[in-house]
Amino acid sequence: MIIIMLDNAAQSEIAAVEEKLTSIGFQTHPIYGEKKTVIGAIGDKRQISMSEVLMMPGVENIVPIMRPYKLASKELKQEKSVIEIGHGVTIGGEKLAVFAGPCAVESREHFLKMARIVKAAGANILRGGAFKPRTSPYAFGGLEGEGLKIMREAGDELDMPICTEVMDTRDVDLVAEYADIIQIGARNMQNFKLLREVGRHNKPIFLKRGLASTIDEWLMAAEYIMSEGNDNVILCERGIRTYENSTRNTFDVSAIPVTQELTHLPIVADPSHATGNYRYVAAVARAGVAAGADGVMIEVHDCPKCAASDGPQSLKPERFEALMKELRGIAAAIGRTI
Amino acid sequence: MIIIMLDNAAQSEIAAVEEKLTSIGFQTHPIYGEKKTVIGAIGDKRQISMSEVLMMPGVENIVPIMRPYKLASKELKQEKSVIEIGHGVTIGGEKLAVFAGPCAVESREHFLKMARIVKAAGANILRGGAFKPRTSPYAFGGLEGEGLKIMREAGDELDMPICTEVMDTRDVDLVAEYADIIQIGARNMQNFKLLREVGRHNKPIFLKRGLASTIDEWLMAAEYIMSEGNDNVILCERGIRTYENSTRNTFDVSAIPVTQELTHLPIVADPSHATGNYRYVAAVARAGVAAGADGVMIEVHDCPKCAASDGPQSLKPERFEALMKELRGIAAAIGRTI
Amino acid sequence: MIIIMLDNAAQSEIAAVEEKLTSIGFQTHPIYGEKKTVIGAIGDKRQISMSEVLMMPGVENIVPIMRPYKLASKELKQEKSVIEIGHGVTIGGEKLAVFAGPCAVESREHFLKMARIVKAAGANILRGGAFKPRTSPYAFGGLEGEGLKIMREAGDELDMPICTEVMDTRDVDLVAEYADIIQIGARNMQNFKLLREVGRHNKPIFLKRGLASTIDEWLMAAEYIMSEGNDNVILCERGIRTYENSTRNTFDVSAIPVTQELTHLPIVADPSHATGNYRYVAAVARAGVAAGADGVMIEVHDCPKCAASDGPQSLKPERFEALMKELRGIAAAIGRTI
Amino acid sequence: MIIIMLDNAAQSEIAAVEEKLTSIGFQTHPIYGEKKTVIGAIGDKRQISMSEVLMMPGVENIVPIMRPYKLASKELKQEKSVIEIGHGVTIGGEKLAVFAGPCAVESREHFLKMARIVKAAGANILRGGAFKPRTSPYAFGGLEGEGLKIMREAGDELDMPICTEVMDTRDVDLVAEYADIIQIGARNMQNFKLLREVGRHNKPIFLKRGLASTIDEWLMAAEYIMSEGNDNVILCERGIRTYENSTRNTFDVSAIPVTQELTHLPIVADPSHATGNYRYVAAVARAGVAAGADGVMIEVHDCPKCAASDGPQSLKPERFEALMKELRGIAAAIGRTI
Repeated sequence: MIIIMLDNAAQSEIAAVEEKLTSIGFQTHPIYGEKKTVIGAIGDKRQISMSEVLMMPGVENIVPIMRPYKLASKELKQEKSVIEIGHGVTIGGEKLAVFAGPCAVESREHFLKMARIVKAAGANILRGGAFKPRTSPYAFGGLEGEGLKIMREAGDELDMPICTEVMDTRDVDLVAEYADIIQIGARNMQNFKLLREVGRHNKPIFLKRGLASTIDEWLMAAEYIMSEGNDNVILCERGIRTYENSTRNTFDVSAIPVTQELTHLPIVADPSHATGNYRYVAAVARAGVAAGADGVMIEVHDCPKCAASDGPQSLKPERFEALMKELRGIAAAIGRTI
Repeated sequence: MIIIMLDNAAQSEIAAVEEKLTSIGFQTHPIYGEKKTVIGAIGDKRQISMSEVLMMPGVENIVPIMRPYKLASKELKQEKSVIEIGHGVTIGGEKLAVFAGPCAVESREHFLKMARIVKAAGANILRGGAFKPRTSPYAFGGLEGEGLKIMREAGDELDMPICTEVMDTRDVDLVAEYADIIQIGARNMQNFKLLREVGRHNKPIFLKRGLASTIDEWLMAAEYIMSEGNDNVILCERGIRTYENSTRNTFDVSAIPVTQELTHLPIVADPSHATGNYRYVAAVARAGVAAGADGVMIEVHDCPKCAASDGPQSLKPERFEALMKELRGIAAAIGRTI
Repeated sequence: MIIIMLDNAAQSEIAAVEEKLTSIGFQTHPIYGEKKTVIGAIGDKRQISMSEVLMMPGVENIVPIMRPYKLASKELKQEKSVIEIGHGVTIGGEKLAVFAGPCAVESREHFLKMARIVKAAGANILRGGAFKPRTSPYAFGGLEGEGLKIMREAGDELDMPICTEVMDTRDVDLVAEYADIIQIGARNMQNFKLLREVGRHNKPIFLKRGLASTIDEWLMAAEYIMSEGNDNVILCERGIRTYENSTRNTFDVSAIPVTQELTHLPIVADPSHATGNYRYVAAVARAGVAAGADGVMIEVHDCPKCAASDGPQSLKPERFEALMKELRGIAAAIGRTI
Repeated sequence: MIIIMLDNAAQSEIAAVEEKLTSIGFQTHPIYGEKKTVIGAIGDKRQISMSEVLMMPGVENIVPIMRPYKLASKELKQEKSVIEIGHGVTIGGEKLAVFAGPCAVESREHFLKMARIVKAAGANILRGGAFKPRTSPYAFGGLEGEGLKIMREAGDELDMPICTEVMDTRDVDLVAEYADIIQIGARNMQNFKLLREVGRHNKPIFLKRGLASTIDEWLMAAEYIMSEGNDNVILCERGIRTYENSTRNTFDVSAIPVTQELTHLPIVADPSHATGNYRYVAAVARAGVAAGADGVMIEVHDCPKCAASDGPQSLKPERFEALMKELRGIAAAIGRTI
């Protein structure tokens, strides 16, 4: 890291900073400019709190040189991770993953029906909500345990892995018992206790980007999970909060090439939650695949206006089928398959 | 609410929407314009999901007329809530609350020392972190249960209420046993399970605004807590995420008059977390009081560079004392006391 | 529009609002709810200032029902505009436009060289800056008039239209004399005097979205130009400002389907300025085409590190050629050509 | 500046960067870490384009150490600038400036009436719009030249300086002839041609922060003006664009202490445009003064609902008087006067 001293820093202050850095295992290299002194420090800043040094007299700022995450970074692992999901599905390889299904599990009959429809159209992973985070305390909160059983039954019948969200540390064991992929929702991306808890299981984790999280914070959340021993983290870009309100969130399509440069973990695009509007889902799904995502997650419902949750962003089965055809063409144009 | 139909909506579509609305207890009032029809619907939209109607053929959009929260709103309760904290302290009345203390509880000796210092300078509530949310899995996570005991001892010795954060549903009972005020941190503002859990206790809840939460979402989080029976919610503005990066977050000073118009709940300003920089804390604290906040929360540390957490934003005791003098003058200028 | 009255609005206040609305040509339709009265008003709100009504006693808020722009809207013109550029090029039809060239015109030799390279790779419009907006007063400001002549020469030699920016009302006539397309840069999107001035010419206008402009504001800027008689406006999405700083701006890919729903004007994607980083340009260009953009604008430079401006975001010729191949495949997958 | 090399940068790449830096007048100081090499470069980066170096093989990133502006910085001038306005008014000293008046100059009678009212309440500078930037091409654009004459007459009659906006390079001479302070509006903060033009006059410039401008960009805009020879720049914080929509913009109160640390230029708070709502203006004005602003700008109108522009944010005369009393108390509490 680089320590930038104030313009008028005293020689004694510079010396004190060097001494501090040396005492915690850094080698220091001061550079004296006409107005400013900066100190290059060689060592591993992840071991110490930068604030100890930042608060020393004469220090203006500290510039980190290395990213704060390690296990998630390409420093540690250059080749891309290909994550085994079970039921013959992997994420991160040449073939794209297609997660599809209704927002919430509404009933056994409905979920099985939707599962068959999305499988027929080409999806290879079932998605559905058993525990639902809702902004209103008065809204439908999900079938919970019953929903998990329904999803498992559908997954087994169709030989497809299932992905569902967990919201509470107390429910992690239960969800892990049924699900093939455990989802951490956007609102819980910095629920650190929950991250640690899912890190102790060995099921793949589907980590949605927080509504207003930077890419660095997102990779630090992945690092939390990985630091407990679970390396199977799949990132999911689902839109960030901006001032623009013609869509629910702004799908950050650049996050796809940026994360692929910084981490070996695969990344999936979720156009349904990003746009919040079925009229824009297909365009954004195509954009995600074209940008290089390792998969897409699409909400599909046969009767969006009857949906218990998030109907406005769900595609009807026929639109989903049409989209799948377009996605196959786009994937082929960049050397991938669906 | 107002249902806006598409420009070319068919008469049959308009009729279907009216029928649907009537069937769920609304009275409808269609208005036929030259290009557009809109339908006024009288009733309580909080009972139904807007998406059922939004997805009907011919519907362009729905405009809610009433706010989505009820218990937190001024519709229900016009006069401002004055919340009893214990140890003779209330929040929401003429006298401002001053929460002060170190970011984290570091040791018994240190916390007691800091508690005495902030009390002497005029603070009336002790703050400190026993469970610490940290963006890095490798950073200090707090003394946990031991920290709670230390805070309680300090609170009892100095006859001051204590405020501390809970991060996990599994820890709520433990924190409630020791704390006078239970804090929900910014990253957990939409951890709905945790909101419900603290709503089942009767201790006042200190609800920090999420990093990228709208004021409506914040009041919906308060509604979650209140819907479980706990009306003692104190709001805390601690900065929102914006593109500006000269401060850690942007302190949204307008949130103070805006929430005072929408809700009866009191609001406290936290300039320490908003700015993340001790050099700006005093100016923003003064701004919060001048804007009409019911209190301030200030991090104070006798050796910021040794602090286990958030040293760069902590005020030294002498700066805190000087700030308290300024705040007294400003409070007096607008008819409040500290 | 819908006028929402305060909860406790007096009957006399409601009557006064109705009278005011009637006096300015609206028909009113009051709807009396249990707590609130709302007034539907039929007429053309674009004729009056909403603030006259908004300030009346008892009024809480006004909800517009119609978009504020008219000439740019699909209300007026359902079919997509196909804009004639000259030199056999159109924008908005089945074939995509590819604007390419260096950020700034640096010299006659260099521009001609780059022009031949991008033409050979498949570009059909030349871009280049003669007048350069620079955040620093000490940076290279462009060759100005000399640059315009060089661009014109290149365009004529290669039979390609040229697109270049104008920044000052005093330069509009000069730029219009040389350019086939006049560009309004992001920082001038709400330079209303400049918008009016270019609206008085009949050359197509390339209107970049402001750094922090909503889609509605952008279409209002188009309306400014069109209200002066120039209907040939081409929109350009070039990234918006958000909190995320791993790219210069955040490319708002959803703006492509959203504008296509709201306006008949064509839209072009500019991944170079959005990302500010050549490593991400190809992925975002592919995303733009996949989402349905009517064209792309790409900065190309044979020696990015020698570029007088914006080198870090420029593609080298060989990368541009490779990208063009990918874009052709993606365009084909969605029924377009390049 | 610090050049950060890629992890796997070759020794020859490092040497080439050093050679390049040396050739343009820098002294280089490489620091070799276990994984990374960084190169400290001593010299004046404002002389060269960073992109030349950034594009060299093996370079990952460049970290500037010095701020990009010079004339506006405290490096050059430590003591705060006190700007002479004329009519006995200064800005930047102990006494605060109070700009007040209607949004637009509507008529001679009305402006004179409002001018007398705000003077009586304690304002010392008249504000008013002769040229009005409007988001809609169909809205009132101002009285232009006639408005300037009216303002001048009022200023002379009441012995008060006047402040008004210029939007077009072609109008600068005209505005400079009448106004005591020339305002650059938020939407023109990066209209570089206009900045240069006003920099060539010697009248004080009131530089509003752009809607989505960083503090660094704002100070670079000041630098543009100053680089032409006009040092009399007054900054004005008027709210930034964020996701929160309960106010028109988010007043960035921290910008007051931040700019006071970075520049010697004075700063004024504009709560009227920031909030866009008269109900929040007083709270935010008090916050601005408490945070240390050198003045406030308040829109005042005797009949907000009749105002030709921005009525909803204007204070009635009696509210303005009440606010002035509160501001005097707050100013006194921090050692200032009004």
